[in-house]
Amino acid sequence: MTTQEQLQQWHELAQQLRVDSIRATTVAGSGHPTSSMSPADLMAVLLSKYLGYDFDNPHNPNSDRFLLSKGHAAPLLYAMYKAAGVITDEELLSLRKIGSRLEGHPTPVLPWVDVATGSLGQGLPIGVGLALAGKYLDQLPYHVWVLLGDSETSEGSVWEAFDHASHYSLDNLIAIIDVNRLGQRGQTELGWNIQAYAARARAFGWQAIEIDGHDLTEIDQAFSAALSINDRPTVIIARTKKGKGVASLEDLGGWHGKALKPEDEKQAIAELGGERHIIIQVNKPEEQGQPATTGNPQPLQLPTYDKGAKVATRRAYGDALLALGAAQPDVVVLDAEVSNSTYAEDFAEAYPERYFEMYIAEQQMIAAAVGLQVRKYKPFASSFAAFLSRGYDFVRMAAISRANIKLVGSHAGVSIGQDGPSQMALEDLAAFRAVWSSTVLYPSDANQTAKLVAQMSDRSGVVYLRTTRESTPVIYGSDEEFPIGGSKVICSSERDQATVIAAGITLHEALKACDRLKNEGIAVRVIDAYSIKPIDVQTIHQAAQDTKGNLVVVEDHWMEGGLGAAVLDTFAGTNIIPTYNGPQVRLIKLAVLDMPGSGTPEELLHAAKIDADAIVEAVKSQVRQPVGV
Amino acid sequence: MTTQEQLQQWHELAQQLRVDSIRATTVAGSGHPTSSMSPADLMAVLLSKYLGYDFDNPHNPNSDRFLLSKGHAAPLLYAMYKAAGVITDEELLSLRKIGSRLEGHPTPVLPWVDVATGSLGQGLPIGVGLALAGKYLDQLPYHVWVLLGDSETSEGSVWEAFDHASHYSLDNLIAIIDVNRLGQRGQTELGWNIQAYAARARAFGWQAIEIDGHDLTEIDQAFSAALSINDRPTVIIARTKKGKGVASLEDLGGWHGKALKPEDEKQAIAELGGERHIIIQVNKPEEQGQPATTGNPQPLQLPTYDKGAKVATRRAYGDALLALGAAQPDVVVLDAEVSNSTYAEDFAEAYPERYFEMYIAEQQMIAAAVGLQVRKYKPFASSFAAFLSRGYDFVRMAAISRANIKLVGSHAGVSIGQDGPSQMALEDLAAFRAVWSSTVLYPSDANQTAKLVAQMSDRSGVVYLRTTRESTPVIYGSDEEFPIGGSKVICSSERDQATVIAAGITLHEALKACDRLKNEGIAVRVIDAYSIKPIDVQTIHQAAQDTKGNLVVVEDHWMEGGLGAAVLDTFAGTNIIPTYNGPQVRLIKLAVLDMPGSGTPEELLHAAKIDADAIVEAVKSQVRQPVGV
Repeated sequence: MTTQEQLQQWHELAQQLRVDSIRATTVAGSGHPTSSMSPADLMAVLLSKYLGYDFDNPHNPNSDRFLLSKGHAAPLLYAMYKAAGVITDEELLSLRKIGSRLEGHPTPVLPWVDVATGSLGQGLPIGVGLALAGKYLDQLPYHVWVLLGDSETSEGSVWEAFDHASHYSLDNLIAIIDVNRLGQRGQTELGWNIQAYAARARAFGWQAIEIDGHDLTEIDQAFSAALSINDRPTVIIARTKKGKGVASLEDLGGWHGKALKPEDEKQAIAELGGERHIIIQVNKPEEQGQPATTGNPQPLQLPTYDKGAKVATRRAYGDALLALGAAQPDVVVLDAEVSNSTYAEDFAEAYPERYFEMYIAEQQMIAAAVGLQVRKYKPFASSFAAFLSRGYDFVRMAAISRANIKLVGSHAGVSIGQDGPSQMALEDLAAFRAVWSSTVLYPSDANQTAKLVAQMSDRSGVVYLRTTRESTPVIYGSDEEFPIGGSKVICSSERDQATVIAAGITLHEALKACDRLKNEGIAVRVIDAYSIKPIDVQTIHQAAQDTKGNLVVVEDHWMEGGLGAAVLDTFAGTNIIPTYNGPQVRLIKLAVLDMPGSGTPEELLHAAKIDADAIVEAVKSQVRQPVGV
Repeated sequence: MTTQEQLQQWHELAQQLRVDSIRATTVAGSGHPTSSMSPADLMAVLLSKYLGYDFDNPHNPNSDRFLLSKGHAAPLLYAMYKAAGVITDEELLSLRKIGSRLEGHPTPVLPWVDVATGSLGQGLPIGVGLALAGKYLDQLPYHVWVLLGDSETSEGSVWEAFDHASHYSLDNLIAIIDVNRLGQRGQTELGWNIQAYAARARAFGWQAIEIDGHDLTEIDQAFSAALSINDRPTVIIARTKKGKGVASLEDLGGWHGKALKPEDEKQAIAELGGERHIIIQVNKPEEQGQPATTGNPQPLQLPTYDKGAKVATRRAYGDALLALGAAQPDVVVLDAEVSNSTYAEDFAEAYPERYFEMYIAEQQMIAAAVGLQVRKYKPFASSFAAFLSRGYDFVRMAAISRANIKLVGSHAGVSIGQDGPSQMALEDLAAFRAVWSSTVLYPSDANQTAKLVAQMSDRSGVVYLRTTRESTPVIYGSDEEFPIGGSKVICSSERDQATVIAAGITLHEALKACDRLKNEGIAVRVIDAYSIKPIDVQTIHQAAQDTKGNLVVVEDHWMEGGLGAAVLDTFAGTNIIPTYNGPQVRLIKLAVLDMPGSGTPEELLHAAKIDADAIVEAVKSQVRQPVGV
């Protein structure tokens, strides 16, 4: 039974959260007070009674996790932090100011924020990743609480999460939908039809509890019911009013994302009973266990391949992942129902307890990876490279979350052959290069792949590896090293007249071209630019120096944003004067210009003019043309 | 009542479709015969009795539309075309060969294929767009049939479609889910639990009909029931067997995406009753009406703005869209619940019959645009630029569909200010440049925006417009022209020592820098590169010639793939020798390097070193450094 005293305390706290959301946004001159006010009662009860969280040690593995999926309600989150005593009222009022940790939408600049939110529909799928970690990896009883807005349930990613959470019986996952009826520009699709939300959730296998989100007793009972279920996730569907508690705001349109003017603020605060500065003691987690560990780490024994053998780099990825699995118990693997193509399947078979099948739901897959890395696991997530584009917004947000995730895309480029353009990633390098602080790798050989996969494991940020469908010759010894940021000069002489820069499948074409040109008396240098970001500036500049500025870059990718762009970027300064001082660069980009169809890999490489023939022609056109003409 | 004779005819046709799917893939040596066999009975009945389609005139507005969402079942589609008499058996056997129209997954290279499929989960949301066109714009009674695989229902985009189809009461939309239980690498999440599919669909407001997908009578009844409902969409959930009809394939794992070997083909065909060459007469649509028209087109009267006024380009977008609405009855507008920020709301108010609220579902929004353009409408779809990244795979596929869609992203870059990085598009230019045959525009002023919006309307391919949140000064007269592919040289003299290239928000910083540098005796040229793709190569090369190769590019975007990359690309040859023969280019890219937080637009532009201060500094560093050192 909830006592009247408790109810009164919760009410006071809820009003404080509302008042503080208003105060912070009015000082800032912008923000979302009304969206912060609707779920204030829910959050008051959660913070006071249910959340077990160790604010002193945000990485305490026993703490519940809380994700504010409706990130625009950041003022509410920060008001909760103030109520928990971890930020001061002064800091609360620094909201949205430059240098403040209290950004317009939450980011992990704050130690208690696990992931950035603000792109709607991401909190729940990330929560699925955290709940997978809790239930299957950590095997600790913490709960994952996710507060969603009602508008964001339009995002398909939310239903990917509903689907996966029930598939994995995530009884440790509790979603709260703040059904305040009003989106940014008007009523939501379902309005206050909380029965419709509940029917959908139940059809997806969840326990759904419909409540009045301003009735503290109902809230209390719903949270309690959510904790007592042990076979499925729970969603609490709370009917609320946007701007609750202030007559001039409550359930009214036109107030989304608007701060109150100072003259209106006073009246609103008075209506809410004035300022309060309650500080509550948030419960620390009861349990003080350690995450489960799986097996003893073995020394890393990467696979090795004999020179001349034909091995697809995707095959080597699978082999290397298996080896990592033995060496690093914190490596976990996800795949979007194509593990027999990406070769994640070998890991899945060997370490089923650390493999999560994500079915065909790339957004959920990437989000789960983000959730898993919050708990310090090292997620490798794979699919066809083309289909990773499905989760691009999740990758973008992962960078803002400062998440450490490893994404692996197979079947890149026209060289996949017969399946046709829908299956060909031709924009992936551009997309992943344009992710903040990312690493982009594109190996050409199996031994190189293995060495790069090993380095990915401890690399921070978003790390992307592009693999090739086709089997290609092993060209490097298994003892060679391939540091990220480096490159390999494969052919080189003092008489080199041009440099060919390639990576992945086109490197093999470059080597063929090199041989053919040698037979015709033209020496060329070949650089294997397996590390596309960061790229090996020095080796490229040296080559430009040595080969009269004649550079040919060849890639199985659209013309824009890929390897060619990375090479060009080395000749530009970034906010400083360029460092290159060699001869005039005459660079030819060989890349895919026309929409490919189906054909054999060889036919399509030829048709796209990115094969040995095209390289030979490009080099000849360069060396024949006198410099400066 | 279905007669025995009819049933026998349908059975024969279904067996032919299976045999032909096997024959075509065996000759090709790859492809998906078993995925083509499971829905063959469904397709035999559809093609024989229900589909009203004018194969002679694929654009006949009265024709039903059929989308093969499970694009890997392309052999089945091509076998249907053979049965309809529009391709020969010889062409059928050209499957997956170079130059053949029969690609591994369907593309509009074939006149009867409206959109490319093969990235799963896209057919149904595109079908929503077509059904919106049929019900609300054309106002013709055709139906939109979509065949989905069961695996692809894991994609959230499918549930965005379920949601939107019921919201818009699309009783002209019929989805068929081929529940063959087996995905690429094993059983699907729900297996043969067709009740679970039905419960989800009903919770989303659909009529759901569960059938045995190999029982021709049940199929017939289900299609009939689908046509008779008039208040909601229908989904037929058909329990089927992958590889149906051949004992060595039927309901067995390990057969996804595998062609039969010639020696096994013979036995399989024999089991299916041998080769057949039935040609059926597909019903032409009964109705021969014309699409509804909305209003008489008025002469285009673009909005005009006075020089010096401060107007956000997003505001000008909204104004121009409104003007287009009056002039072009085929312009339709979609927005993802932020129309009061993108300013699509003015069009929505003026032309509600041509505005579709897509709520927060960017994948569905872009897919609907693709569907609408199939029926020759001109869709403009808008959201925050950052959130368009949610639909990147749909944009990629739209290009393969040769779709003509216009996407508009507001709130680009750090200059949005206080809301923080989750709301800032900083990778959109890179992403959209790397889309095949795309156009990328980024205006700096309201008059320019209006002129560009007018040109977007008739531009083919994927056209992207980036708008700015902040109000910026109007710098151009309303009579100036801004052709796509062009640029504007704003400041220029014979003594220019460097060229600053900017677009959008940074153009205003460039102009401030130009003034300040002039006061210090340094003349610079300023180029407004509003057309980022295609970019104005000639003007940039001329500037490099004239200003000793000193170029500074400044953009509110990450360092990779944006305007700076577009400028650098002009100095590279694309499969040909570079056309630039001027002095050594010394290019400085000013772009965003560090993850921004919240702050005022001015503070954030300054912190990112892309404001006038940074431009002044960069130019000075260039002009002070002697050439060649």
